[in-house]
Amino acid sequence: MSEADFKYIIDTFFALFAMVLIIFMVPGFAMLEAGLVRTKNVSSVLTVNTMIYAVASMFFLLIGYTIAFGSWENSSMSIWAAFLFQMAFVGKTVNIMSGGVSERVKIIPLMIFTVVMAAVIYPLVVNISWGADLLKDTVLDLNMYDLAGSTVIHSTGGWALLAAILIIGPRKGRYKNGNIRVIPASNVPLVVLGAMVLWIGWFGFNGGSVGSISSVENANTVAKTIMNTNTAGLAGAIIAAAIMYMRYRLLDITMILNGALGGLVAITAGPDLYDMYTPILIGAIGGALVVFAVPMFDKLRLDDPVGALSVHLINGIWGTLAVGIFVESVSIVDQLKGIVVVALFAFVSSYAVIFVINKFVKFRAEDDVQVEGLDVNEVGVEAYPEFKRAI
Amino acid sequence: MSEADFKYIIDTFFALFAMVLIIFMVPGFAMLEAGLVRTKNVSSVLTVNTMIYAVASMFFLLIGYTIAFGSWENSSMSIWAAFLFQMAFVGKTVNIMSGGVSERVKIIPLMIFTVVMAAVIYPLVVNISWGADLLKDTVLDLNMYDLAGSTVIHSTGGWALLAAILIIGPRKGRYKNGNIRVIPASNVPLVVLGAMVLWIGWFGFNGGSVGSISSVENANTVAKTIMNTNTAGLAGAIIAAAIMYMRYRLLDITMILNGALGGLVAITAGPDLYDMYTPILIGAIGGALVVFAVPMFDKLRLDDPVGALSVHLINGIWGTLAVGIFVESVSIVDQLKGIVVVALFAFVSSYAVIFVINKFVKFRAEDDVQVEGLDVNEVGVEAYPEFKRAI
Amino acid sequence: MSEADFKYIIDTFFALFAMVLIIFMVPGFAMLEAGLVRTKNVSSVLTVNTMIYAVASMFFLLIGYTIAFGSWENSSMSIWAAFLFQMAFVGKTVNIMSGGVSERVKIIPLMIFTVVMAAVIYPLVVNISWGADLLKDTVLDLNMYDLAGSTVIHSTGGWALLAAILIIGPRKGRYKNGNIRVIPASNVPLVVLGAMVLWIGWFGFNGGSVGSISSVENANTVAKTIMNTNTAGLAGAIIAAAIMYMRYRLLDITMILNGALGGLVAITAGPDLYDMYTPILIGAIGGALVVFAVPMFDKLRLDDPVGALSVHLINGIWGTLAVGIFVESVSIVDQLKGIVVVALFAFVSSYAVIFVINKFVKFRAEDDVQVEGLDVNEVGVEAYPEFKRAI
Repeated sequence: MSEADFKYIIDTFFALFAMVLIIFMVPGFAMLEAGLVRTKNVSSVLTVNTMIYAVASMFFLLIGYTIAFGSWENSSMSIWAAFLFQMAFVGKTVNIMSGGVSERVKIIPLMIFTVVMAAVIYPLVVNISWGADLLKDTVLDLNMYDLAGSTVIHSTGGWALLAAILIIGPRKGRYKNGNIRVIPASNVPLVVLGAMVLWIGWFGFNGGSVGSISSVENANTVAKTIMNTNTAGLAGAIIAAAIMYMRYRLLDITMILNGALGGLVAITAGPDLYDMYTPILIGAIGGALVVFAVPMFDKLRLDDPVGALSVHLINGIWGTLAVGIFVESVSIVDQLKGIVVVALFAFVSSYAVIFVINKFVKFRAEDDVQVEGLDVNEVGVEAYPEFKRAI
Repeated sequence: MSEADFKYIIDTFFALFAMVLIIFMVPGFAMLEAGLVRTKNVSSVLTVNTMIYAVASMFFLLIGYTIAFGSWENSSMSIWAAFLFQMAFVGKTVNIMSGGVSERVKIIPLMIFTVVMAAVIYPLVVNISWGADLLKDTVLDLNMYDLAGSTVIHSTGGWALLAAILIIGPRKGRYKNGNIRVIPASNVPLVVLGAMVLWIGWFGFNGGSVGSISSVENANTVAKTIMNTNTAGLAGAIIAAAIMYMRYRLLDITMILNGALGGLVAITAGPDLYDMYTPILIGAIGGALVVFAVPMFDKLRLDDPVGALSVHLINGIWGTLAVGIFVESVSIVDQLKGIVVVALFAFVSSYAVIFVINKFVKFRAEDDVQVEGLDVNEVGVEAYPEFKRAI
Repeated sequence: MSEADFKYIIDTFFALFAMVLIIFMVPGFAMLEAGLVRTKNVSSVLTVNTMIYAVASMFFLLIGYTIAFGSWENSSMSIWAAFLFQMAFVGKTVNIMSGGVSERVKIIPLMIFTVVMAAVIYPLVVNISWGADLLKDTVLDLNMYDLAGSTVIHSTGGWALLAAILIIGPRKGRYKNGNIRVIPASNVPLVVLGAMVLWIGWFGFNGGSVGSISSVENANTVAKTIMNTNTAGLAGAIIAAAIMYMRYRLLDITMILNGALGGLVAITAGPDLYDMYTPILIGAIGGALVVFAVPMFDKLRLDDPVGALSVHLINGIWGTLAVGIFVESVSIVDQLKGIVVVALFAFVSSYAVIFVINKFVKFRAEDDVQVEGLDVNEVGVEAYPEFKRAI
């Protein structure tokens, strides 16, 4: 057997392994968000997560992949494995966005947006960041280093979410007479389950983004990448716990998990480039940023029930900058340029698309629908019909 | 290292990877069914799922594997990995059956049936469909193409379920005075979690059924198989959502997930043989079949709380036929012949076995046990003892 | 490509695969324990599980790994993969301990203990059992065979738990006027989900402990190890079910699952050494031991809400002895010596550390905190705030 064949086989297998881990993030996101919202909106959130996976993947197959990568050819591994690995990413961007407008967003307009995101917006972001194509090489000349998508995935989703929040507005009753109403998570075990499965999925996300495990050097890089990814998550969780404890003498588990996720987003741009200790610093800053950003967005009246702006947008930016700060061979100017270009493109295009869709099909559920809950009105299935409600 | 050794190592590793994904279907089925039944029967359903895995796997190890494959020898990979991969399949057949008689089936007779199914019935179906043995090659001469078991697994389970429903009857109070009582799922997040984990498990089921990833051609086939499997699931979900929305303006998440599962069952017979677009059609038809079959079975007074007949039996048949329709090299007559032979054998043998067991140990829980719930009477453990019931 | 490079690549990939399975045990433990405790302590248990993973892994990275293995070098696979695989084990030891003192343990002192356990105690146990270092080879000369940690992981955690229970005492109201108050699991689907995910994680735990899959012989050993691991779990579940049914005519699902886990712990010392039938016996005895040990510990007034002493300590001992009994080449005296040395070291050091910490920060939550629930007092987040409580 030739070495090329060996590499082809191993890298195909490895891409499938990584893909499976990433697809686990679909139930991961679904459980996390189902646990964070009120029981009356749980079925709606679950339907949104399921349909995002279905619709985004389908339109990436039909249209998006070709826009992102130019052609269905790939000589280093099976093209079908390469596709599956890339497809597993797509829905994430919309997931990030949909989570942050939970409890007041209607499903049908969200699905229309999902089509546009998966078929056009996200593929164009990929093309200018990771592709080897006209847009990237001649027009924009981005040299941002972003291994697994701190900017390409997480910030893109975050900017789309910011656009959506600006158009859709906060949940009814969330901000009232200058007060912020605290709305607690309805099912904490699901939050923990979801966040932990996302964490595991991240090993596939970042490790798989190395693209090959079939040489000694690549095997080391993959393992290092996964180790550094994990370390940043650990640090994010620990720092969030420490801050919460120092402030309130309470170890708020939802904030701890968001701290971990913040650390994971932050490491995602360059987990392959750091030594084994730097991720501790990057993750810790990521976790701290989440703790401080969550109340900040509330002060700005940007209602985000799952903390997605803090986790994905803020840390997508921080993580991309961090590569420029801590890695000598990466230019911080290139990182900044990439952040700004993707920000402008993702925010403006998402805003425009949501704005236009919103003219025809309103994204925002009516006040009485929000009060009664989206489950009854949009899904027709209550999440827990047999349990008596205390609130 | 010789090429044969390389293949042996890689294919053993790959079979273990696929096996792990399939074993994830055990909690997948358990969560799906626990979410679909009423809270008073949840512990019972969970016990059934756990014990099916334990009993079916044990008796397949002790007896079934030898009947199915003749000998414990396998030159292309470790026999232990080959066994584990096959063992992971066995419980599925009984799972399909047990899910559909939930909320009124007693555990002990079900376990006796599980022994017979795992030790004899299923192994004989495997032998005549996939084996290379007396029965297959000389007596029956089946040439059905069924890569991962649209017929061998899903229809077999479906026929056993039909036999069981005919003998056990519907849940008390389900059909009354000509009306059909709607019994809602008690825990929708568990339904979604379970269905999504099943979906991921399917990648191992179908991808692993290729049997080898250790050549460039096989690596392509495995990746293609997983991609096509996924695509059919996507299409099934989307079409089910579209039909529900057009009919009711509601996106019933349980039906959407059953649509996805229907698409996945339908693709299972030939995911390696299609181009990348055909699975869209096969999955879409599969999803639509589920939406129309669910009320049909209710009209026939075949009470199936989880929709297993629609998902597994109907789509097992459809998926096996589809290979004959869309793949030139496969004869539709051979497919039909396989469907009919397996149908006859699985239905008749299951009916006979259930009928005989039922003479000694009644499958059907008494009316008052059904009213009080199987958990208290069969398991002694309530699923959610601290939550006050609304209904 | 050289054979050494091939092995390096495959074994790195395989270690990452095994590591991922083991990390799934983090949500596995979290769900199992969250399901077993009362709703008022669920967020606390979840926080404990999350923070154990974060803190234990971080301190193993910073200190423990070096103590356990001497140096960060490994020529047979990527050192980062080797580290990740070992790191995935660490938290388990504390998990076993923390589960058994649920519903009355405070999080901060537990975290301090976690630091000591992950940085010093567990690494020293590893060093004398698996390391190749001063302690093992010259001072203690342990020759215990313990492939994946029946003693090193499970008994160590179990002894630490026994020390903790002796110091912390039982839950308030558990033993009153000579009676034992039965406290039922609050969420049985989570118990099942958690136990099944642990079961799957065990494949990575034991299979990965073989250390290599990159030769025909090793591939066979890995597959055999996973098969035998699974078989013992099957037998443990079946025997526990049989005993419960014979005694009470009830199939208590929580006991069945603990029986399965008992079988899995028992097989862990030598799954690679047995033929395919011996694990049935070992697992069956393991499952039976759990069923009899659970009430025994209650009679001894050792309050253990999740049955961890029965599952991990008793079966850790049984499993280690079993290798000496059933495998000719392993000396039962060496096994006994290993069991005793680790018992003394783990129990005494854990007792001392918990005792000292307890002087400064009390482990035991005050009575009124226990009555109100740890969630409100320690986490500030209720697990299910919207559900009305029946009890």
